[in-house]
Amino acid sequence: MYPPPIQKLIEQFSKFPTVGPRTAARFVFYLLQAPKEEIEELVNSISNLSKEIKLCSFCFKPYAGPGNLCEICYDPRRDRTKLCIVEKEVDLEAIEKTKKYNGLYFILGGTVPLLKKEPKKIRISELIERIKDPAIFHLFNASFEEIIIATNPTPEGEATALYLEKKLKPFNKKITKLGRGLPIGGELEYADEETLSEALQRRK
Amino acid sequence: MYPPPIQKLIEQFSKFPTVGPRTAARFVFYLLQAPKEEIEELVNSISNLSKEIKLCSFCFKPYAGPGNLCEICYDPRRDRTKLCIVEKEVDLEAIEKTKKYNGLYFILGGTVPLLKKEPKKIRISELIERIKDPAIFHLFNASFEEIIIATNPTPEGEATALYLEKKLKPFNKKITKLGRGLPIGGELEYADEETLSEALQRRK
Amino acid sequence: MYPPPIQKLIEQFSKFPTVGPRTAARFVFYLLQAPKEEIEELVNSISNLSKEIKLCSFCFKPYAGPGNLCEICYDPRRDRTKLCIVEKEVDLEAIEKTKKYNGLYFILGGTVPLLKKEPKKIRISELIERIKDPAIFHLFNASFEEIIIATNPTPEGEATALYLEKKLKPFNKKITKLGRGLPIGGELEYADEETLSEALQRRK
Amino acid sequence: MYPPPIQKLIEQFSKFPTVGPRTAARFVFYLLQAPKEEIEELVNSISNLSKEIKLCSFCFKPYAGPGNLCEICYDPRRDRTKLCIVEKEVDLEAIEKTKKYNGLYFILGGTVPLLKKEPKKIRISELIERIKDPAIFHLFNASFEEIIIATNPTPEGEATALYLEKKLKPFNKKITKLGRGLPIGGELEYADEETLSEALQRRK
Repeated sequence: MYPPPIQKLIEQFSKFPTVGPRTAARFVFYLLQAPKEEIEELVNSISNLSKEIKLCSFCFKPYAGPGNLCEICYDPRRDRTKLCIVEKEVDLEAIEKTKKYNGLYFILGGTVPLLKKEPKKIRISELIERIKDPAIFHLFNASFEEIIIATNPTPEGEATALYLEKKLKPFNKKITKLGRGLPIGGELEYADEETLSEALQRRK
Repeated sequence: MYPPPIQKLIEQFSKFPTVGPRTAARFVFYLLQAPKEEIEELVNSISNLSKEIKLCSFCFKPYAGPGNLCEICYDPRRDRTKLCIVEKEVDLEAIEKTKKYNGLYFILGGTVPLLKKEPKKIRISELIERIKDPAIFHLFNASFEEIIIATNPTPEGEATALYLEKKLKPFNKKITKLGRGLPIGGELEYADEETLSEALQRRK
Repeated sequence: MYPPPIQKLIEQFSKFPTVGPRTAARFVFYLLQAPKEEIEELVNSISNLSKEIKLCSFCFKPYAGPGNLCEICYDPRRDRTKLCIVEKEVDLEAIEKTKKYNGLYFILGGTVPLLKKEPKKIRISELIERIKDPAIFHLFNASFEEIIIATNPTPEGEATALYLEKKLKPFNKKITKLGRGLPIGGELEYADEETLSEALQRRK
Repeated sequence: MYPPPIQKLIEQFSKFPTVGPRTAARFVFYLLQAPKEEIEELVNSISNLSKEIKLCSFCFKPYAGPGNLCEICYDPRRDRTKLCIVEKEVDLEAIEKTKKYNGLYFILGGTVPLLKKEPKKIRISELIERIKDPAIFHLFNASFEEIIIATNPTPEGEATALYLEKKLKPFNKKITKLGRGLPIGGELEYADEETLSEALQRRK
C-alpha cells in the first residue's frame, strides 16, 4: 500500500479516460521525481484551464478568446446554412482536419443512454433552441438548411441519431447522416456483414 | 535442423498464406502424430480437389457439379443485368453472406500490380469478353446494365478499380463502386482522414 | 456454403494447430490456384512423411535415416548419464538450439490431463522402461545419473512434473527441473508474483 | 489546433509516462467537463504531493509520516542484514507484494546509461555511503551481510548490475542476483535462447 497522499492521487488519475491504477501509479511516481517548476506549471495549467477556456455560447466548443463565440462560429467565411451535430469535441476536431466541411457545429456532449439508467445530460433542448433561432445565441444571420447528424456508427451513436431525427423532424430541414461503408484500407473479407450491406446499398 | 522429409514439408507449408516456418513445423509435427487414416484422407482430399472442383466457365468461381456453370451463374433467379467484379473467391462469399446482392459475379484473380514488376496474371481480357458476349461463355440471355467494381479499398484494389473503369468505359454501361465511409462500430475520432472525408461527401 | 470437396478440406485443415475455418479456407483457395506440380509435390511429401520418418526407438524423436536410433541417441559424443524429459519435439529443438545441453532426451508426447477426462496417452511406462534398462531399447552403455524434467511451467506442465517426480522417485536418481525466474528482457514491475517469488528464492 | 491553454496542458500531460498527444487531449477534455470540485481536489493533491511526501533518508522510498525513515526502514521486525537494490519504487512494491522478502531496500533511481550520453544521476555514492555506515543515515544497528542486486534483466539493468558488482566488491559482502529462467506460464517453445540457457544452467 502506498501512503495516503500517493494513494489519493492514484485514485484521482484513475478517473482519467484510459488510465488504470497501474498507469496512475506511474504518473504519481513521475511527478514525485519531476522538478518543482514542472509541477508548478502543471498545477497552474490545470487551475487556469476553466478560467481561460470558455464554452462557445452557440456550439459549446471550448475556446479561449474574447466574445461569446468560438473561432468557428465567429468566422464569417463559414457556411451558416449547415449545422453538423457531433457527440464530442474530438469528433469536431476530426472533421475539421479533413478540410471537407465548412459549416458550423453543435457539440451534444454525449449520447442518449441505451438502457434507461440515470439519463446522462446531453444538450437536446439547447440544440433545438439554437436551430429555432440562432440569433438569440449570438449567431446572427445564420439559417440552417442542412443538419448533418455525425454521431458515431456505434450502437449508442446510432440510437442518438434516431432520437435526433425524430426530434428534428418538425423543423422540416434537410437531415443527412455520414456515409457508411468500407473504410479506406479495409478488406471485404474482414468487413462485418452490416458494413458490407451498407457499402453495397450505397454503391454509386 | 530437421531431417530432410520434415524440412521439405515445412518449406511447402510455409508457402501457404499466413504460415511462417514455425507454424509450418507445428503442422508437420501434428501430421507425424496423426492417425494413418487422417493422413490418407487429407492426401485424398488434396489430390481430388483439382479433379472434383472446376472453375465456372463464366465467373471463375470454383464449384463442384455437372455442367459448365457454377450454382450462381446457373441459377435462373439471379439478376442477370448486374455483374459484380471481385478480386477473389472469399470476397464473393463475403458479399453472398450479406444477402443484399442478387446479381452475377466475376472473379478477377487478383489486382493489377502497383509497381511494374512481373505483371501478375489477372483476368482482364476474360472479363471484357464476358461483358461483350456472355452467351459465348454458356451464359445465355444475360445482358449487363450495371457493373459493380467491388475491389478492396486498399491501394492495390483502388488502382485496379481505376484500371477497370478505364477499360470498361467503351461499353457504356453504368459502372458503380462500393460505398466508402465509416464502418459500423467505428468512431470518428479514430477514423483516418480519407475515410472521414468520404463519409462527409457521401452523407445523405 | 462451399461445395463439398472444398468444405471437407476446410474441415481437415481446421484440425491443424492454430488453424480456424477462415484460415483453412484460405489454404484451400491457395491450393485451388496453385500449379499442378506444387500440389503433387505436397501430396507426395505428406504421403511419404510417415514412410520416411521413423520415431527413435529410444527417445521417440522423429528422424530419417538407417537404424533404430535418432542422430542424438546414436551420437557417441553425447553424455549418456543425463536424460532430459520434454513434452514434445519442438521443446527438444528449443533446448538443442541453446547448445548448453549435451545429454539425451525423452519425448513424453504431451502432459498428464489436469481434469480426469479420457487420459491422453503419454509415454509414462515407456519412460520408466527406458530409465530401468536403456540397453533393451538399443541404447547400450547408457546409465542415467541425472534426470531433468523439462516440462513447461504451465499448469499442465507443472502437474506432469509432479507426477513424474513421484513415479521416478524409486529409481534414486538425481532429479532436476529447469530454473524458474525472470526471463531475459523482463521487468520486475510486470512479472507475476509467483515468478518474482521464484526469482527471489533462487537468487544467487 | 486547440487554443493555447488547452494546447499547453496537452503538452504537459504528454510528458507523463505512456501518454501521447492523443491521450493527453482526452485528459484535457475530461478535465474541461469535470466538476469544479474534482479539479480543485486534483490540483490540491498534486500541489501537496511534494509537501506531504518525503523521501526516506536511508532508502529513498517516498513516504508520508513523521521521522526520517520510511515504514519499512523503521520497522524493527525487518531483517537488517539484507539489502535489496532496485531501480525504482514500483520494483520495490512488486517485491513487497510477493511477501517473500523481509530485508531492507535501496532505490537507485534508474540505471547506468548504456551509451555515454549525459550520465543520468543515479544514487551510486549514496548507496556506498549507506552500506559503509547505515547509522549515519538514521538506520541504527543495521549491518548488511547480503546485498541483492534486483535490477531488471534488461540490457540497462544488466549493465547496472555489472557496474554495481564492481563497485561493491571491496566491501566483501555476499552479493546475489535474482534468479533467471522460465517465467511461470511460459513455454520452452517460445522462450528466447538466452532465457532457456539460463534455465538449463540453473536447473536444480
